[in-house]
Formats: sequence, structure tokens, C-alpha cells
Amino acid sequence: MWLQLDGEGPLYQQLYRALRRVILEGALLPGARLPATRSLAREAGVSRNTALLAYEQLLDEGYVTARTGSGTFVAASLPEEPAPAPRPAGGSGGRSRGPAPTLAVSAQARRMLAQAPRSGVSWDMPRRHLAYDFRYGEPAYADLPLETWCRLLGRRARRASAVRLAYGDPAGAPELRRALAGYLRRARGVVCTPEQILVTHGSQQAIDLVGRVLIDPADRVALEEPHYTGFSLPLSAYGAELVSIPVDEQGLCVDELTAQPAVRGVCATPSHQFPTGGVLSLERRLALLSWAERRAAFILEDDYDGEYRYEGRPVPSLQSLDRSGRVLYMGTASKLLFPSLRIGWLVVPEPLVRVFSLAKAYADTGSATLEQRVLADFIEGGYLERHVRRSRVRNAARREALNRAVERHLGGTASLAGTRAGLHGLLWVHELPGAREAELRRACAARDVGLYPVRPYYTHPPPQAGYVLGYAALSEADIDEGVRRVAAALEGL
Amino acid sequence: MWLQLDGEGPLYQQLYRALRRVILEGALLPGARLPATRSLAREAGVSRNTALLAYEQLLDEGYVTARTGSGTFVAASLPEEPAPAPRPAGGSGGRSRGPAPTLAVSAQARRMLAQAPRSGVSWDMPRRHLAYDFRYGEPAYADLPLETWCRLLGRRARRASAVRLAYGDPAGAPELRRALAGYLRRARGVVCTPEQILVTHGSQQAIDLVGRVLIDPADRVALEEPHYTGFSLPLSAYGAELVSIPVDEQGLCVDELTAQPAVRGVCATPSHQFPTGGVLSLERRLALLSWAERRAAFILEDDYDGEYRYEGRPVPSLQSLDRSGRVLYMGTASKLLFPSLRIGWLVVPEPLVRVFSLAKAYADTGSATLEQRVLADFIEGGYLERHVRRSRVRNAARREALNRAVERHLGGTASLAGTRAGLHGLLWVHELPGAREAELRRACAARDVGLYPVRPYYTHPPPQAGYVLGYAALSEADIDEGVRRVAAALEGL
Repeated sequence: MWLQLDGEGPLYQQLYRALRRVILEGALLPGARLPATRSLAREAGVSRNTALLAYEQLLDEGYVTARTGSGTFVAASLPEEPAPAPRPAGGSGGRSRGPAPTLAVSAQARRMLAQAPRSGVSWDMPRRHLAYDFRYGEPAYADLPLETWCRLLGRRARRASAVRLAYGDPAGAPELRRALAGYLRRARGVVCTPEQILVTHGSQQAIDLVGRVLIDPADRVALEEPHYTGFSLPLSAYGAELVSIPVDEQGLCVDELTAQPAVRGVCATPSHQFPTGGVLSLERRLALLSWAERRAAFILEDDYDGEYRYEGRPVPSLQSLDRSGRVLYMGTASKLLFPSLRIGWLVVPEPLVRVFSLAKAYADTGSATLEQRVLADFIEGGYLERHVRRSRVRNAARREALNRAVERHLGGTASLAGTRAGLHGLLWVHELPGAREAELRRACAARDVGLYPVRPYYTHPPPQAGYVLGYAALSEADIDEGVRRVAAALEGL
Repeated sequence: MWLQLDGEGPLYQQLYRALRRVILEGALLPGARLPATRSLAREAGVSRNTALLAYEQLLDEGYVTARTGSGTFVAASLPEEPAPAPRPAGGSGGRSRGPAPTLAVSAQARRMLAQAPRSGVSWDMPRRHLAYDFRYGEPAYADLPLETWCRLLGRRARRASAVRLAYGDPAGAPELRRALAGYLRRARGVVCTPEQILVTHGSQQAIDLVGRVLIDPADRVALEEPHYTGFSLPLSAYGAELVSIPVDEQGLCVDELTAQPAVRGVCATPSHQFPTGGVLSLERRLALLSWAERRAAFILEDDYDGEYRYEGRPVPSLQSLDRSGRVLYMGTASKLLFPSLRIGWLVVPEPLVRVFSLAKAYADTGSATLEQRVLADFIEGGYLERHVRRSRVRNAARREALNRAVERHLGGTASLAGTRAGLHGLLWVHELPGAREAELRRACAARDVGLYPVRPYYTHPPPQAGYVLGYAALSEADIDEGVRRVAAALEGL
């Protein structure tokens, strides 16, 4: 076997070092696939968990990249460090991967490859079974009214007919757009006609369409710092020059935005800043809208979890306050129902309806219609609002449990921020430097706890370690036990 | 009422002229929505069919645009002609639509708007009920094994679990990619691993991803002349400079392509040229591949209906002959099953797997998983191949019926080309000039026959009128009766 363990320290550290050596010596070239953890564990004579932890450390340090369902691969560009042996000669940027390239790629594709190592996007987070997983972005599946969903699905599927199986409107099924217009007005105060709603493949496509229709290479686009990387990765692939605007407990610091010259638009999460959790004050909302009007700038309002609010008066969505057609409002069924549905929506100002419909048509001729119609039935039947009401109660209890658990097990050592709304909190560990974020993460994984560092969401990570704690998928008892184990892991560092 | 009929000629012509006048006089501004045909008919005291015919003529002549499910709108830029009254001042290109624009759009979006009036794409063809509809691109829904599909769908839906409802691999569900790798090898000789397959939202997204990853603005990209507009519209929106390469009965004239300087790649339909129906000879296939290898150019092989072949020896797909990683192969479930499924596939050379997976992830985080899994079950259960075998027999009979009907009713007046493979033929009407294509189309619509002109697929339309006749959705008797009515309509011109 080609792996030599050096016998020093924890077994997963030995395995990690052995693997890193193999990569740095060029025995595994950039792009090569690593063995599955199961077979690696067998070959190296260690437990699968040990193999997983070794891979996670390689991942954290940028030696490998992981793709859900496809495996783990040697990174296109390896992290800078003194290599113990000469590295194989690589091309520039991310172009040097695996088999010799046979075709040149576009500037956009080169930008994609160059930036790929930074992660934090939902679809690129390693997935493994952990008993206490604070993974953000997924609901408690037991809360979902799946029986109702299946019943509606079966009914729609049986009613298939020529028209229902043929190409539909690229902008979305008319029944869903009507249902969404009503729902968004009732739930979020969004004022629009069904025609202004584009049905997208989740939030990600809404971001992509905005990139396509509103952004030219070299345009300056403002993002909150920190922000969801699903914004920064595709927008910089489009060639946008990203401008970081700080946030505080009231959300985006609008003053810092308005001081910036020549900004084409801003992507913001006013209901619940992701990931720090601030809620944008009404005063700042009005200042933001007035800036957008003066500068003819766009505001992409990402209302990813606006349905969940536990404290303070509800603040109207930016879209509902917009008088000048500057706000594009996006939301998603991923947080309301489940991610694999891949349905989201983008509400655009009337004058942009046509160009966004064209962009969606060129992108994919429109989304599949069956599940759009099922979602329409689900909304019109009142099931969505009932589900949201019930989830809000359950999630409020989970949030309480999380706040209590942090107080009990980590009081003084760490603090929890941003839980006034949404489905996650941000745990700041006071005395742990940011550079050791991954270390605590691994120590927690060894204790069956999933913890997700906040660093990937920052352009300039803070000195302190922080973790995004998603609580919507855990029971109150598991939340408490999970936090207790985090405290134990922290002590063991 | 604001419409004044002039009492001259057929009623639908009067209505058409009255509507055109209203548009040209500016009483309906660009972007304004026209009333639904039903209410227009009521108001004007004519039949709904008359209203439909008037709208179709406006559509044919570029005064209005239609979007399935959304209605009919005054075109952004009106056709050039001496206007009876001053037109409202419009902006440049397609920017002048409807409500005052509040936000500037990107160069890509401006290109989309500027070119939008040309159509011929599946999702933008007016849909109305016609008894003998030669609309291309849809199967006979009665042929579909919908019961089996629904059964598999129900089973998968009930087996929902946390992992199945969470984010999946953006490149596609692993079970579908495995099933497709097997199917494509058996059915089309495609040689690839499951990892090389990207599950897309139909063919259109495959084209979009190729545009994104391989094409920079001003790159010269070759297209067959004529070609499916789903290629030219998005690729020119990406800024590609399109180069037209003629086709003959053997498909793409590869010599003309190789004579072109600096071509980045070509999009081709070797199995069955769309829409003229030629099948690319083996000799030309090899010449095309050798060109691509020498020039490091890509070939996007669109195998949209390669399963249907009735005459001559099967010719291997380009992908199966490619030794240098230049071919990207795309196919779609729209022709094999039904369009609203919105599932297609793109097989990319190994070195491009990573960048295409990133592009797909940035575009939409991956396709919805339920129907991907159902399609995987459908393939693994052998249902797809059984369905294709049965459809091939049925479609061979329909094709026979079409050839016989054209011979019987239109012999000497028109000829049918390109029926050696696929699901459509191209009807050339010898003595009808191309400029009168729309006229025959309307005359046929008045006889309950749907006929689809070939002009939108040409950059430089031919002098002769031609129509794409899709026959897969019609019975043999209806095919005969439909062609009989075309002959009658032609005589009445």
C-alpha cells in the first residue's frame, strides 16, 4: 500500500499527513479521484470515521475538493506551502486539472475554475451521517407534510394530458405564478402581478439570471460581508467586481454602501442577514431604496427565510416599499419545503419581465411543470401556510433550546448571535482564533457533531472562530446534547 | 369599441388590418398586451377562430409576439413600413418596450432583446387546438407508457427521505447518470463514464452550458444553415459571431466548414439534420472529427432524435468516433418521453467534467431529483427501450402514411424531404414563393390544419416555401386527411 503512517499523534492526523504527502509528491495529480473512505479505511486498517476525518482536514486545508455523490478529488491548485518534494508542473490558475485539456475554455469558465476552492455553498458541503448535525439549510424532514404532498403529486400525475406534457411557458406554470402572487402578498407583503414572477430552479438560478441580465464584466456589484457564497461565486464568474459592505446587528451598513462610487447593484438579505442574522431596520431599508432610486441601481432582495420571525415587529420586505422599480425579490421552496424540489421565484419590476423571461427561456426553456403544479395546489389548498405556521412554532421551540443550551454549556466561552429570525444562529467562540476553526470542527465530528465554520462566507475572515448553527432539522433534546458535545470538544482542544 | 372593420375581404383580414392600425397609430404601445382572442371575438362580433387568424397574421408579420400562457403583446420593435400615422418614439434596439425602463440591462440582455422577434423555438410557438396539427417536437401522448411512469413516480415519491429531499449532486442524480451511461452506450454507441454525463434541463440548458463554458464574445461559432433557433438565439446572446455552413442531403457540408478561418466550434445534428433531415455520411463524420482535432475546435453533437431511423445503415454517433476529446454529445427526454419533463443530458470529454459541473452548479444547483430518479428507474426497468422500440414501429407507419399522402395529394406540387430518420419531414412547395409561406399557413389553420413554416430556421431563407411536418403525434388517417387539406388550402390560394 502506498500510504505510510508516521505513528505520531491521532490516527486521523497520521492518515491526513500520509495523504498530503502523496498529493504533494505528485503521486496523485490535480483532479485525480481519491479512493472512497470505506475502501481507504479498509486498506489503511483504520475506521471509516478516521478516514473521513483525514479527508475533512485535507478539504479544510484546500488539498482536495469534494463533490456530493461524486467523491473527493485532488484540488486543481494546491495551497501554497513549502513542499517536501518538487510538485508536478501545473498550468496557470485552475486550468491544470487532471487529463490534458483538449479544448480551451471561456473567460467565464476560467474564472469559475480559478475561484472554485472557496466553498460554503449548499451543494458543495461534504455530507456524512452525524447524529447531531447543525448543518444549515435543511428542514426537519419529519415536520414536512409529505403525505399531502404525495397525494397532490399523484393526482396531478394522473391528470397528465397532451397540454400538460408539452412545453409550457418558460417563465413558469401560470397556476403556480398566480398562487405565488397571492402567497407572497399575504406572507411577505410583496406587491406584484403573476406575470412579474419567474419560476426558477431555486434561488441559485435567480442569482444566475440577475447576473446574466443586469451585470456586465467589470461592473461593480455590492455584497454583504459576510455573505452566502452562492452569490459571490457565480457573480465573479460573470466578471463582476465585488464590493464588500460590512454588516452589523441591524444588517447591511447602508451608509458604507452609499459612500461607494459607481455600484451597479447590491445583493442583500434584509429579513435575516446571512449568516450573521441581523434584521435590516426600517430606516436603513428606506435609505437603501432611496440610494437605489438616485443611482438607478438594482437591489436583489434575498428573502430566503423571511417566514420565520420570532422577535420584534415584522419589517416590510424591500419589494413592498419599492416605488421606483429597483427591487428584484427572490425566495425559495428549499427552506419552506425541501431543497430537492428545486423551485424558487424571482419577482422582477414590470419593465424587466420580458428580458428576464427571455433569459430564462434561453437558459432552459422553463422548469419542469409537474412539481410546479403540485406546489400551486399545495399553496391554493392552504397547506403551505398551515405548514409554515406549524413550522414556525416548532422552530421557535428549537431556537429557544439552542439559546438555552449555548447559555448552559458554553456561557462565557461562546455567544450566539442572529437568532431573532430564520433557522440558524451564528456561534462565536471567544477565545478560539479563526485559524483554528477547522480544528474544532474536526474535534466535533469525532464526537458525532456537525459544525460548519463561518469562514467561507467571509472575503476577509474575522480573527475569531465562528460557526453557522442550523437548528431546524434537530429535536430540542439533540440540540442540547449537540451543544454539550461542542463544549466538550472545545475543552479537549 | 376602438376597432373599426373596413368591410373588405375575409373577416379575419379586416380584423387584422384594424388591429394593425391601432398598433401603428400608437393606441397600443410596444409591450402592451392585446385582449384574449375570446374577448376580442366577443367585442368585435366575430368567431374566435377569426380572431385567432388575425392574431396569427400579426404574429407572422412581426407586429406582435406571443408567449405561451401569457398572451399576445405588441412587438418591441415594429416591422419597417410606411406608417399611416406617426409612430411613438422608441429607443434603440429592443430597449423601448412598455413601461419606462428603470434599470439598465447587460450587453447580453440587450442582445437578447434585439434579436427576440425571430422565433421557431419550441417554447415560443403559438399553441391552439387544431385537429390536424403537424406541430413538430411532441410525441403522440397516447403512445406514452404513462401508467408505468406514474407508478414509478408514486413509488419514488413515497420513498422520500432526508437524503432524497436534500441538495443532490449539481451534475445530476448518480442513479440517473449510471442508467444513462448504459442506455446511451446500448442505443447510440456513446462511450462515457457516468461522471461525464451532466443531467440538464432539456437540450436548451445543454446549449446554454456550452455557451457559458466554451464561448467568449466575438468567438466564431459555426451553425448549420438552416438550424434550430434554440442554438442561434442564446449563442448570439452570448456574443458569439455565428458562421452559417450549408447542408445538403448528406447533412453538414464539412468542406465548407473546414474552409472557414478561426472557428471555435460547431453545433451539428448529424443523425438527422434539423430541419432538412439529411444524415451525415461516415466520410463527413470522420472529416469533421479530424478538423476538430487539428483546430482544437469543439463539436456539439445534438442527437435529438437519433433513436428513430428507418432507412440505410445506422451511422455511429460522432461521440463514439471521437478519439481526441472534441465532441460534446447532447440528447433529451423531450423526444423520447415528453417535453414538460425537462430532462436532457450533455456528455462532455473527461477534462471538461469539472468545469461543466461548476457551470451547472452556478446556474441552478442541479436539477430536481424526483423525476431524475423516476427516469433512472424507467431506464433500468427496461421500459425506455421497450417504449422506443414500440414508438419506432408506430412512427415508421406514420412516416409511411405521410410519404404516401404527400405523393397522393400533393404529387408534382410539393415534395417531402428528410424522412430517412427522426419524427418530421420537410415539405417544399414548389411554386409557392417563400414570402407567401405564412399565407398558406393561415389558409391551413382556417381548415383546422397546423403547418409550421421553415423560414425561422434560416438565416437566409430560401426562395421557396417550406414547412416542417411533425408526424409523431398524429394517426395515419389524420396524417392523410391533414395533407389532403393542405392540398385544398394550396389550391384555394
